[in-house]
Amino acid sequence: MKIIVQKFGGSSVKNTERIKNVARRVVATRRKGYHVVVVVSALGDTTDDLITLSKEITDNPSAREMDMLLSTGEQISVALLAMAVQSLGVKAISFTGPQVGIVTDTSHTRARIKHISTQKFVEALKRGNVVIVAGFQGETEEEEITTLGRGGSDLTAVAIASTLKAAACEIYTDVDGVYTTDPRLVAEARKINRISYDEMLEMASMGAQVMQGRSIEVAKKYDVPIVVRSSLNNHEGTLICKKAKAMEDVLVSGIALAKNEVKVTVFGVPDKPGIAAKLFKDLADAHINVDMIIQNKTETQQTDISFTVYQDEFKQTEKVIGTIAKGINAKGITIDEDIAKVSIVGVGMRSHPGVAATMFGALAKKRINIEMIATSEIKISCVIKKDKGTEALNVLHKAFKLGKGRGKRVVV
Amino acid sequence: MKIIVQKFGGSSVKNTERIKNVARRVVATRRKGYHVVVVVSALGDTTDDLITLSKEITDNPSAREMDMLLSTGEQISVALLAMAVQSLGVKAISFTGPQVGIVTDTSHTRARIKHISTQKFVEALKRGNVVIVAGFQGETEEEEITTLGRGGSDLTAVAIASTLKAAACEIYTDVDGVYTTDPRLVAEARKINRISYDEMLEMASMGAQVMQGRSIEVAKKYDVPIVVRSSLNNHEGTLICKKAKAMEDVLVSGIALAKNEVKVTVFGVPDKPGIAAKLFKDLADAHINVDMIIQNKTETQQTDISFTVYQDEFKQTEKVIGTIAKGINAKGITIDEDIAKVSIVGVGMRSHPGVAATMFGALAKKRINIEMIATSEIKISCVIKKDKGTEALNVLHKAFKLGKGRGKRVVV
Repeated sequence: MKIIVQKFGGSSVKNTERIKNVARRVVATRRKGYHVVVVVSALGDTTDDLITLSKEITDNPSAREMDMLLSTGEQISVALLAMAVQSLGVKAISFTGPQVGIVTDTSHTRARIKHISTQKFVEALKRGNVVIVAGFQGETEEEEITTLGRGGSDLTAVAIASTLKAAACEIYTDVDGVYTTDPRLVAEARKINRISYDEMLEMASMGAQVMQGRSIEVAKKYDVPIVVRSSLNNHEGTLICKKAKAMEDVLVSGIALAKNEVKVTVFGVPDKPGIAAKLFKDLADAHINVDMIIQNKTETQQTDISFTVYQDEFKQTEKVIGTIAKGINAKGITIDEDIAKVSIVGVGMRSHPGVAATMFGALAKKRINIEMIATSEIKISCVIKKDKGTEALNVLHKAFKLGKGRGKRVVV
Repeated sequence: MKIIVQKFGGSSVKNTERIKNVARRVVATRRKGYHVVVVVSALGDTTDDLITLSKEITDNPSAREMDMLLSTGEQISVALLAMAVQSLGVKAISFTGPQVGIVTDTSHTRARIKHISTQKFVEALKRGNVVIVAGFQGETEEEEITTLGRGGSDLTAVAIASTLKAAACEIYTDVDGVYTTDPRLVAEARKINRISYDEMLEMASMGAQVMQGRSIEVAKKYDVPIVVRSSLNNHEGTLICKKAKAMEDVLVSGIALAKNEVKVTVFGVPDKPGIAAKLFKDLADAHINVDMIIQNKTETQQTDISFTVYQDEFKQTEKVIGTIAKGINAKGITIDEDIAKVSIVGVGMRSHPGVAATMFGALAKKRINIEMIATSEIKISCVIKKDKGTEALNVLHKAFKLGKGRGKRVVV
């Protein structure tokens, strides 16, 4: 029998009515003859409520205790969903991440999954159960409870789908799928039917909040087909898979805006080999994820290095960056929180020149100044002032003709 | 170094201010040089809120999923308390019941502790930690999460104190200790300084809501001295231990009222050996705790058996009692929810006649009708109409001269 993994985010289970709705959907899939494994996030605002409680206690909670606290959110969801499925006459059993054998490393609040044991899954599925697993959590080999950080429930779902060789991994959310850009900011945004892992990776890493990058990486690595769709209707959603259909005639698939980054510049750094390596190793040791990196040579034997970090790791960055900068004999540090990053993504742009020029030209026409540029084979990102973000998004969406009702996207 | 176990109930941790208050108390004990193990209940109304959620899903949640759901309450408390203790500069680590090695049987929602592993405790205490354990929960040998039922956190505390051979087990609550009777119902109720396990057992089983019977049983069995005291002040509390001081001149120690029982009568039962045994074995098999039992012979070869069960097991009782009654060829069943049980307790009454007569006389004078009577060596219980409960309590408190400002309690 084929296994389908279904993941429901916080908005899909924000109250008991929604949970019953999810249960009906799960039961419908089960009754079609599939084995169903469900991964659930915490109910609506639960995680935020728990964070608020912790802040009332201390500004600097230990990461281990934070995991202890936050992991309860998903545990509540799985128990309630199991009850809801059972009350529809279908066998169901819930598990916490630790219980079902999701083993992670020891990095609390941002743990990585090391392996997933299949034993409990196989036993429970064999007995005819819908298996309901708490997303976002696992335990170390020393039985310490961990959480997986941002987008952790998606990761749980994809990792389980891969481990169990599931036929599909369905990610249910409150939007209909992946859009060419954020529909709340650009009225003409259009749903994408099919997108490649690589494109989705770039979309995800750049602030398209549908799915988090780590999950797509794992899906790509193990070739798990993902369907992103709404838990509120039966629309088809977006298929994320190895190859997007008719990829050749698509130039730019989507445009993303990220406002959750902070730019850090370390200036007056001695320009000699190994300095950048040391800087970024020290940041990695402090568990800080760096996004964009740019190095400009300013004068002889000195250079400036700029990079962006995520807002929620900014506090940690501030704490260590002084010491790190001193360690590489830098002259100083500047920090700029007033930035946004706008990016265009598309497999097609690999073989089409002029894409960058179109992007920069469109921004220039609106007098939007570009502070940093970073490129990869399938994306170009520009850092601009924060308040220009939405305008840039709209301008680029038009420039690359991604809007609704414009028929096929046109190659420049 | 001596170990002290401190248990804080839901009202002691009902909000983050209270949690910080508990942290200060824990830290004070730690700074006196003790190793401290803390057992915590769920925050204030958390458990009730979770039960409400489950009821929105279904009227008949599976016991396993209920445990999954409810065990999150204590997990939230331990994480927050650990943060609060750490923020006062003292090392602390929290554990769930499963994590720390509290192994139970498989009776979900009312599991019994089988054993507690000392390894995690010893390791964590050695490293200088205050160890904070989620009360009310454990896991089976198959790693299923269980809860211990009513008063479970007390049980966790006493069992840990016994396992670790703690110097004392302090039960913090929102009252100053154990009272001669419920001070909310009887203005003259007086705090007892010292009470024996046996007396406390009777008080507990009869509705004195300070501590639950199972915890006292374990404390008695392993001779764990318990102090019941308030988390809101530094008053001395009540010491529960093997022998109450000057026990000889105390006749009746306290009076308790229980309104959470339901009377079931199985009538027209064949009067032959083995019938009662079968009835109560069947109830035990259905995991129903029976409190009082009375059997009256009514006519030749037939008898009526009445017993009381706890309100929260009443639904389960209703479900099975019909079948059970049929199984012993009973003629029928009556159920009476309109009852209260008032009881007097005291080691002294063993050797003093006339106690029962005083009790029945006091009730009769107020025209309070007695429907059932049960006695043990150190208690006498009467079932009366529910609305007479408070009046009976007051009448008996006066009759046995337990009030404040009356000096020593008088022997009749």
